[in-house]
Amino acid sequence: MPADSVAPPAVPAASFQALVWEGNALRLLDQRRLPLEEQWVVCGTAAQVAEAIRGMVVRGAPAIGIAAAYGVVLAARAGEARGSTLALLGAARPTAVNLAWALARMGARWKAGVAAALLLDEAKAIHAEDVVMNLRMAEAGAQLIQPGSTVLTHCNTGALATGGHGTALGVIRTAWAEGRLAAIYHTETRPWLQGARLTAWELHKDGIPARMIADSAAAHLMRTHRVDWVIVGADRIAANGDTANKIGTYQLAVSAHAHGTRFMVVAPTTTFDRDCPTGGAIPIEERSAEELTQLRGVPLAPLGTDAYNPVFDVTPATLIDAIVCERGVVHNPTVAGVAALFKESA
Amino acid sequence: MPADSVAPPAVPAASFQALVWEGNALRLLDQRRLPLEEQWVVCGTAAQVAEAIRGMVVRGAPAIGIAAAYGVVLAARAGEARGSTLALLGAARPTAVNLAWALARMGARWKAGVAAALLLDEAKAIHAEDVVMNLRMAEAGAQLIQPGSTVLTHCNTGALATGGHGTALGVIRTAWAEGRLAAIYHTETRPWLQGARLTAWELHKDGIPARMIADSAAAHLMRTHRVDWVIVGADRIAANGDTANKIGTYQLAVSAHAHGTRFMVVAPTTTFDRDCPTGGAIPIEERSAEELTQLRGVPLAPLGTDAYNPVFDVTPATLIDAIVCERGVVHNPTVAGVAALFKESA
Repeated sequence: MPADSVAPPAVPAASFQALVWEGNALRLLDQRRLPLEEQWVVCGTAAQVAEAIRGMVVRGAPAIGIAAAYGVVLAARAGEARGSTLALLGAARPTAVNLAWALARMGARWKAGVAAALLLDEAKAIHAEDVVMNLRMAEAGAQLIQPGSTVLTHCNTGALATGGHGTALGVIRTAWAEGRLAAIYHTETRPWLQGARLTAWELHKDGIPARMIADSAAAHLMRTHRVDWVIVGADRIAANGDTANKIGTYQLAVSAHAHGTRFMVVAPTTTFDRDCPTGGAIPIEERSAEELTQLRGVPLAPLGTDAYNPVFDVTPATLIDAIVCERGVVHNPTVAGVAALFKESA
Repeated sequence: MPADSVAPPAVPAASFQALVWEGNALRLLDQRRLPLEEQWVVCGTAAQVAEAIRGMVVRGAPAIGIAAAYGVVLAARAGEARGSTLALLGAARPTAVNLAWALARMGARWKAGVAAALLLDEAKAIHAEDVVMNLRMAEAGAQLIQPGSTVLTHCNTGALATGGHGTALGVIRTAWAEGRLAAIYHTETRPWLQGARLTAWELHKDGIPARMIADSAAAHLMRTHRVDWVIVGADRIAANGDTANKIGTYQLAVSAHAHGTRFMVVAPTTTFDRDCPTGGAIPIEERSAEELTQLRGVPLAPLGTDAYNPVFDVTPATLIDAIVCERGVVHNPTVAGVAALFKESA
C-alpha cells in the first residue's frame, strides 16, 4: 500500500484494501485476475472507472457505488460535463442499486463552480460510511451467533465487494475475531466461482481458516456436521423481506430449513426496494450458457450444449431468520418488520 | 464402429457404444477426454483393463463390472493365473459393488482347462444382461412419468456408465423416445462435471434436447418451472431404501420434497446392500481438496485453500418416491418393500 494513500477508517479484521484513492487516481485490485494474480488497475478518468465497473475489475454492489463516486471526482477535475458523466457511470451496471444511489448523492453535490476537493470529500464520505455500516452490521450479526458455532456462506460479500469489511463475510470476520466460530465453510459458487476465487482469497489473506465445499454438498454438510447459520448477502430485498441474491442462495435456504440451520441475510438498508411488494416482482437476470459451458475459454461441455443460467434467485422471507442492517436486525421478516426498520430511523 | 465388432443387443435410444469387444481386445471410449476428444483406449491384457478402470478411462459401476469381465477373458487367453488376475482386477476400484459381483461370476466359470471361448461367452452374457436390465428399468421408470413432464437428472448414468442404455438416463432416453418429456434438465455435477462432460455429450450425441443448470440452481428451477421428477442412479442402496449416490443427490431430494417434485432412483438389484440396515452404515468416501481447487491443473482457488470434498451422500428413503429395478418398482421404499422385491424373484 503506498504511504500517501488516503485510506478509510481502519478495519479491524480485513488486512487489505481492494479500492484505494491515491493522489489523483482510483486504484482497484483487479478481481478478474484473483486469485492467480494480484494486479491493480489505475483509473485516471471517469471513463476508465466506468469500464472497470462494466468489465468486473470491481464488483459487489457497495464497491461499485464507491468506485463510481470517485469516478465523478475524476470527471469534475477534468472539467467534464456533469450530465454525461453521471449517465456514463450509471450505465456501467444498470441493475446495481448502490450505483444509482451513490451517483444521485454525488450529482446533488456537483453544482456549477463546486470545488473538486468538496466532491472528493463526498466520495471519501461514501466510502467511509460504507465501512462504518459494514462494521455495524458485522457487530449486530455476530451477536446473533453463539460461541462455538459453525457457519456457511455463499458467493463473495467481503472487503472485495464493499468499502472494506464486508456484509455477510463482515459478520463472519467479526464473529471469528470475537472467538465465536468453531468452523467456517464457504461454497465455491458456480458459475463464476466467487467463493473459490474471492472468498477463499480474502479469508486466506486474513489468516482465517475455512473449508470450501461444492455447492451441491451443503445439504450433506448440514446433515452430517452441525451447521448453525447460513450467512449471505443480498442484491435486492422486497418490502416483505423476500431476498434476491446470488443463484444458489434459495437452495441453501431450503436445505437450512430442512436441517434446523438458521438463515441470516446481511445488507445495508440501501438494498431494500420497498416499491417491490414481494420477491415475485424482482426481475431475475439470465446470462449466457457459455458461463456454464466454458471456463476461461476451455470448454467444459460439448459445443452446442444449452444451459439455463439464472444469476440470482429469490429466497422467501419465511425461510429467513434474520435480516441484519446497519439500522438493526429484522427477525422473522414481514412487511411490518421491514417497515419498522425504516420508521425507526426516519 | 468397426464392421467386425461383436455388439450387444441393439439399443433403441443410445446411438453409440463406449465399451466394445473387438477381435481380441476390449476397446473403451476414453471418458477422461470427453467431451473434448473421442479417443479409444485398446486393452489387450487384464493389466491394461485394470489400469483403465483405476484411471477412470471407464467409469460407472455397471460399466466397470463389464470391463473387468472382459479383462478375465484376456487373462485366460494369455495363460495368466486365475487368483492373481481376479485380485488385480478387483483392486482397481475396490468400492464398486458391480466389479466384485462380475469377477465372482467370471471366477466361478474360470476352472482349470476351461476354453477361453466359454469365458468370452460369459463376459458377453454379463454385458448383454446389463443392457437388458437397463431396458427393463427404463421401461418401468418411463411408465411412472406422465406425458408432458419435465425431468431433472444428476451426474452421468447413461450408456457411458453401463452396458449400453443407462439407469436414470436410460429412463430419460426411453421416456423421451415415448414422447413423454416436455423438457430435460441436467446438473453440471461438480467437482468432476460428469453432467457437463458426459451427460451433455450423450444427449447431444443422441439428438435429445436438454438444458444444463448449475448444481445450485435446482431449487430455483423447481420453484419457477414445473419439475415433475428428479431421476438419479445409485451407488449403494441399504435394506431400508436409503440410497448413497453422487454428492448433491441428497440436496436435490431435499429441494424436490419442498416443491412437490417426485424423486426416482434407478438401479439394478445388484446395487442393494442388504447387509447395510440404513444409510448410516454406508461409508462416505472423501477425496482430495484439489478436485475442487483445481480444474485440469489450473488453480480455481488460492494455493492452500482447504476443501471438504465428500464424493457421495445418502438420501433417506423417506425422500424417495420410487426405486426402479429390473425386477420391479418399490414405491415409498421401506424395509418390507425392499425385501418384497427380493422375495418376489427368489
